[in-house]
Amino acid sequence: MTLPRRAHPRPLDIRHGRVDLSHGGGGRAMAQLVDELFVAAFDNEALNQRNDQAAFDVAGGRMVMTTDGYVIHPLFFPGGDIGSLAVHGTVNDVAMAGAVPLSLSAGFIIEEGFPLADLKRIVDSMAQASKEAGVPVVTGDTKVVERGKGDGVFITTAGIGMVPPGVSISGDRARPGDAILVSGTMGDHGVAVMSRREGLEFETDLLSDSAALHGLVAAMVAVAPGIRVLRDPTRGGLAATLNEIAVQSATGMVIRESAVPVKDAVRGACELLGLDPLYVANEGKLICICAEPDADAVLAAMRAHPLGRDAARIGHCGADDHHFVRMETAMGGMRVVDWLAGEQLPRIC
Amino acid sequence: MTLPRRAHPRPLDIRHGRVDLSHGGGGRAMAQLVDELFVAAFDNEALNQRNDQAAFDVAGGRMVMTTDGYVIHPLFFPGGDIGSLAVHGTVNDVAMAGAVPLSLSAGFIIEEGFPLADLKRIVDSMAQASKEAGVPVVTGDTKVVERGKGDGVFITTAGIGMVPPGVSISGDRARPGDAILVSGTMGDHGVAVMSRREGLEFETDLLSDSAALHGLVAAMVAVAPGIRVLRDPTRGGLAATLNEIAVQSATGMVIRESAVPVKDAVRGACELLGLDPLYVANEGKLICICAEPDADAVLAAMRAHPLGRDAARIGHCGADDHHFVRMETAMGGMRVVDWLAGEQLPRIC
Repeated sequence: MTLPRRAHPRPLDIRHGRVDLSHGGGGRAMAQLVDELFVAAFDNEALNQRNDQAAFDVAGGRMVMTTDGYVIHPLFFPGGDIGSLAVHGTVNDVAMAGAVPLSLSAGFIIEEGFPLADLKRIVDSMAQASKEAGVPVVTGDTKVVERGKGDGVFITTAGIGMVPPGVSISGDRARPGDAILVSGTMGDHGVAVMSRREGLEFETDLLSDSAALHGLVAAMVAVAPGIRVLRDPTRGGLAATLNEIAVQSATGMVIRESAVPVKDAVRGACELLGLDPLYVANEGKLICICAEPDADAVLAAMRAHPLGRDAARIGHCGADDHHFVRMETAMGGMRVVDWLAGEQLPRIC
Repeated sequence: MTLPRRAHPRPLDIRHGRVDLSHGGGGRAMAQLVDELFVAAFDNEALNQRNDQAAFDVAGGRMVMTTDGYVIHPLFFPGGDIGSLAVHGTVNDVAMAGAVPLSLSAGFIIEEGFPLADLKRIVDSMAQASKEAGVPVVTGDTKVVERGKGDGVFITTAGIGMVPPGVSISGDRARPGDAILVSGTMGDHGVAVMSRREGLEFETDLLSDSAALHGLVAAMVAVAPGIRVLRDPTRGGLAATLNEIAVQSATGMVIRESAVPVKDAVRGACELLGLDPLYVANEGKLICICAEPDADAVLAAMRAHPLGRDAARIGHCGADDHHFVRMETAMGGMRVVDWLAGEQLPRIC
């Protein structure tokens, strides 16, 4: 499969350049690093799909595999911790292919001196999230690095799952005219984490939305096996994720600001912090793109599920050679929702 | 499946204890952390197998999944780097179930300020190792942490593979009377890495043995599908790995010191550094335990393969309620080859 290359203004300066925080931020800089270094080197069909998971055929059907590193800071936040997050995030990346998650692996990199009590709290939370999701952590690894060479705990999980026959969900399948849906309010996770960040702490009742979405996905696929695209808007939020899909599918998108669900508490905190909720990470929400005739049924299935109660239709895909994501603002204007150039919130997931 | 619990002298002090480097060292402290924290929390059949990979049934047969984190220091060493190592190590953990590796995932945690040129060197080396092994890296993830919160690059890979019908290789299958074979010289990797460690540098022509062993395993399984145990003696070396298998299988073991292949350069460096080659990590060697009648054929198959040229029979399993690994020394005595209590070589893989 040949894919449109993303256009980057200047190639990376491999010879003299250094990695900076923007390369982990989910925006344009990260996309460029992935394109020019990783995809270029590993060049293979599964990776070239540029989805958050790879899909390939095995003896028993179509399998997906995904991995994600968790370097979130702080480790414990309202509504979760790095352990539950690592399970939810990886289950979700499997689920976003419409796949049924089978099992997870977990690799821990622990800084010398880390309290065993905190490690136990994280491991127990991870085990509980895994049991609630019904997806076992079947294998793991533990490494310890010297004090000052890590930051408490990093967790890298991988996950595998099987795609039901007849389902083919991928970021390159959006078509002009398709409906764009989201499963709930945007920005809850990022704001909840920031509320506990040193130097930024603020009072809020807000909880992270961190949750495993494979049950919601199963309910959606049951009413509309032809769903085109599913993706969870994590790093870079709704804005980065829609831009990724627009480029992958070579379409444009138009969304309505007034239709994007955002909690008042998130809106308020974002004003305080100078952030745009559209760019803030979510960990229990998904974007769904489906053919217009499927949209009402999918939206009803989402709303009937506890994790999709606030689901909304926020716009549609259109023909656009620039693959822009545009937004009708609440004021009645129209603006481009661009990629984030760098890093809005480091280490939010 | 219920397994004999490893006996630990005192339970972990979860309330006041802290993680130290010994918990990552492959010895008794790590085994205790894994038992009391991880296995206790995640309790499931696949994890309880306590192999370096989990095996479980899927639609198309029996699958294995494994993960490993690489925090090696320095990142570049004679005979390899963290990139090739991450591919070899994970391919090997899949292969040690007798499985055919299918695909890998790779999660990078990069420290801010890391040179792009070094990152490219690592990624290119990883891609080359993956191509040579014929096992693609199908999905990946990149995170960046602030300067001083990491150490250059950490890589966590996961791998999956399929077990051929009729093959059932697991650490709990060794039986009294079985032969113990190794595929080559012990300690090359650890000594090669140490030779480049700050403050320890010494001149040597020694290269790491880092290599993907799935081809060697396929040749062995072809002549003896009934092989009982395969394991690569990485952290903690031959000594820790034999002890793990002895406990898992509830057998004793007797090995002959004079039969264990060790290069002169490794023996010399170990004397210099005060190390025992039996405890030094390998990254391209395996231990094979098979029924005595299979031993000659397996050994011949190993020696016929480029990665098993120096294969040797080093001892046999015996009945022993203490599950001790004992060694006939070159001097004619007999000593217990114990677990390593703590950490001999931190961050060697």
